[in-house]
Amino acid sequence: MTFDPWGATKITDYEHAFKKFGLEKFDKAKFPIDHYLFRRNLIIAHRDFGKYYDRIKSKKTFLQLTGIASSGNLHFGHKVDIDLFRVFKDLGAKGYFCVCDLDAYTSRPDKKIPDLKTAKEYAVKNTAHLIAFGFTSKDIYVQSRKSSRYYEFVFEISKKITSNMFEAVYGHKDLGKVSAVLLQLADIIHVQLPEFFGKNPSLTGIGLDQDPHAKITRDVAKRLPYDIETPSFIYFLHQSGLKEGSKMSSSEPATAIFLDDSPDVVKKKINRTFTGGKDSVEEQREKGGNPDICKVYEFFRFHHPDDSYLVNLGKECRSGKILCGECKGNCVKFINDFLEGHQKKYKKALPEAKKIVYG
Amino acid sequence: MTFDPWGATKITDYEHAFKKFGLEKFDKAKFPIDHYLFRRNLIIAHRDFGKYYDRIKSKKTFLQLTGIASSGNLHFGHKVDIDLFRVFKDLGAKGYFCVCDLDAYTSRPDKKIPDLKTAKEYAVKNTAHLIAFGFTSKDIYVQSRKSSRYYEFVFEISKKITSNMFEAVYGHKDLGKVSAVLLQLADIIHVQLPEFFGKNPSLTGIGLDQDPHAKITRDVAKRLPYDIETPSFIYFLHQSGLKEGSKMSSSEPATAIFLDDSPDVVKKKINRTFTGGKDSVEEQREKGGNPDICKVYEFFRFHHPDDSYLVNLGKECRSGKILCGECKGNCVKFINDFLEGHQKKYKKALPEAKKIVYG
Repeated sequence: MTFDPWGATKITDYEHAFKKFGLEKFDKAKFPIDHYLFRRNLIIAHRDFGKYYDRIKSKKTFLQLTGIASSGNLHFGHKVDIDLFRVFKDLGAKGYFCVCDLDAYTSRPDKKIPDLKTAKEYAVKNTAHLIAFGFTSKDIYVQSRKSSRYYEFVFEISKKITSNMFEAVYGHKDLGKVSAVLLQLADIIHVQLPEFFGKNPSLTGIGLDQDPHAKITRDVAKRLPYDIETPSFIYFLHQSGLKEGSKMSSSEPATAIFLDDSPDVVKKKINRTFTGGKDSVEEQREKGGNPDICKVYEFFRFHHPDDSYLVNLGKECRSGKILCGECKGNCVKFINDFLEGHQKKYKKALPEAKKIVYG
Repeated sequence: MTFDPWGATKITDYEHAFKKFGLEKFDKAKFPIDHYLFRRNLIIAHRDFGKYYDRIKSKKTFLQLTGIASSGNLHFGHKVDIDLFRVFKDLGAKGYFCVCDLDAYTSRPDKKIPDLKTAKEYAVKNTAHLIAFGFTSKDIYVQSRKSSRYYEFVFEISKKITSNMFEAVYGHKDLGKVSAVLLQLADIIHVQLPEFFGKNPSLTGIGLDQDPHAKITRDVAKRLPYDIETPSFIYFLHQSGLKEGSKMSSSEPATAIFLDDSPDVVKKKINRTFTGGKDSVEEQREKGGNPDICKVYEFFRFHHPDDSYLVNLGKECRSGKILCGECKGNCVKFINDFLEGHQKKYKKALPEAKKIVYG
């Protein structure tokens, strides 16, 4: 065992659940992928990653498919998905990042996404962000603009899920959500059809809460009348919200930093963020802070590219050498420096994004 | 009231059901459409045909959409659907005849349609028959080859049917059949979208057993976030099977004359057909036959273009002047004369049909 500066406590919490649901713990020694998402234990589990990793090592074809529902503006919680897509693309994966407008409309309540028009407007914004992250029209597709082969595949899939399978997994059969699930299954599996990249191991990164989708996808893939590899999945930790005990969610803007937040908004949000600080400066100088529960530290853990910065920050925090105010200031600067460049690229990318969404 | 040589008994049987389900009896005096399907009471009921008929009279735009699932070979039972499409096309209707390959695959059991490939092979045959009936690639579409606007509309519809609505109508929520229903709804309604023909009264002809589809289609049309007319429906009598008490069905070849049956097969099937004849020649000469229960007479009623031929045949049958053998011989000749010309056109149409189905 090598020294692990990122702590393994959170993973231990999940081990019981892993066994129960048939997930495997992600073993960094077995799958040494050189990226901070992996080094920092942000990738916690997998299904069938072994055969995928073999392809990476042997440099044979391997695929990936990742998606986001275009049901709101993107925040840094979504960035993990995007960063992960970049990791495997750089390793040589073929595949797509799917902007799921049909899925967003059919699965979200009307008060959130009242019509397809709204989902498409978000799709334009999300796509422009993806381009700003360095992807091109070859990497991205929008569900509503796929070829008819994709759609007929959605309907083929519908015949291979029984009503009982669906209800067992999702506990209901809301027809809009049925559509969304069929689309998600088609997204993940269609890359292996002869008309796309053909039979090859494929990978999708998801949060643990998405595991029911992974299981049903793998079940359905085995039932389809095509020669395809059962898709592999890796599971990332979700970045939590900025408030104590919250999820980063676009429905609650104060819990998240959005990719289009202004420098002032970022500053306000980070200044209000829950930290591991003590009640007084004196106490914190003496006893130190607690990065394990600090949302600012968590932000750096999910997004700062430099491991040594984090290791050092953790030490300085625990020792009381750095206080929350200074640390927050560094975080505001880190985020705003990133967003300044990103938002310039985003604005430039909007016309291309519109073309991808509307044709 | 004018004299009605076709008898109204069968319609009276339905009147209770009509009231119960909210259907209106088709009134020939109110809607005088000059075609034997209408003159002979083969069109028995409607929903909201009045506003449609007004458009026919005023020569403003009116639409139609008819479909057949490509789950088998076409027989003369299907021809009613096709004849009806021709009637409204000749009156000036815009719209399409849909060859439903996705619907056929998703809604039929695997042993009937094991894969989409099979549904498409039937789609080619069905399409070639439609071309032989005089339609062109502008009149026909195949579900699996529609534009992405059509497919996204299918998913939009899924959000507007609640699980309870679906289960109340169909008694189950088999997901393949859910797909089939969503596709059928999209077929009937999409013609009114701005990207197709825009808001206009539209008509679909169906059998009485299909009324649940009509009701759900009209319900959903009202819930969609588009300005569209609630679709109208007319209901035709199904031609029954050649055997006593049977339905004309492609699953039971002996009950139906197929559009690709050979002259010998037609002869054999008609000779075995149930008639209204008596046990002996003598008895029939004396008491006459009964065209009301005769499947040969029914065949002429559904397909012979000449009213006077039928009126005369009915009289000669009842009086004992014509016997079943002679009548069957006439029927064989009538069918084979038609099929000879039709099958020539069908063979010529196959390459174009392939192009429509496979692109």
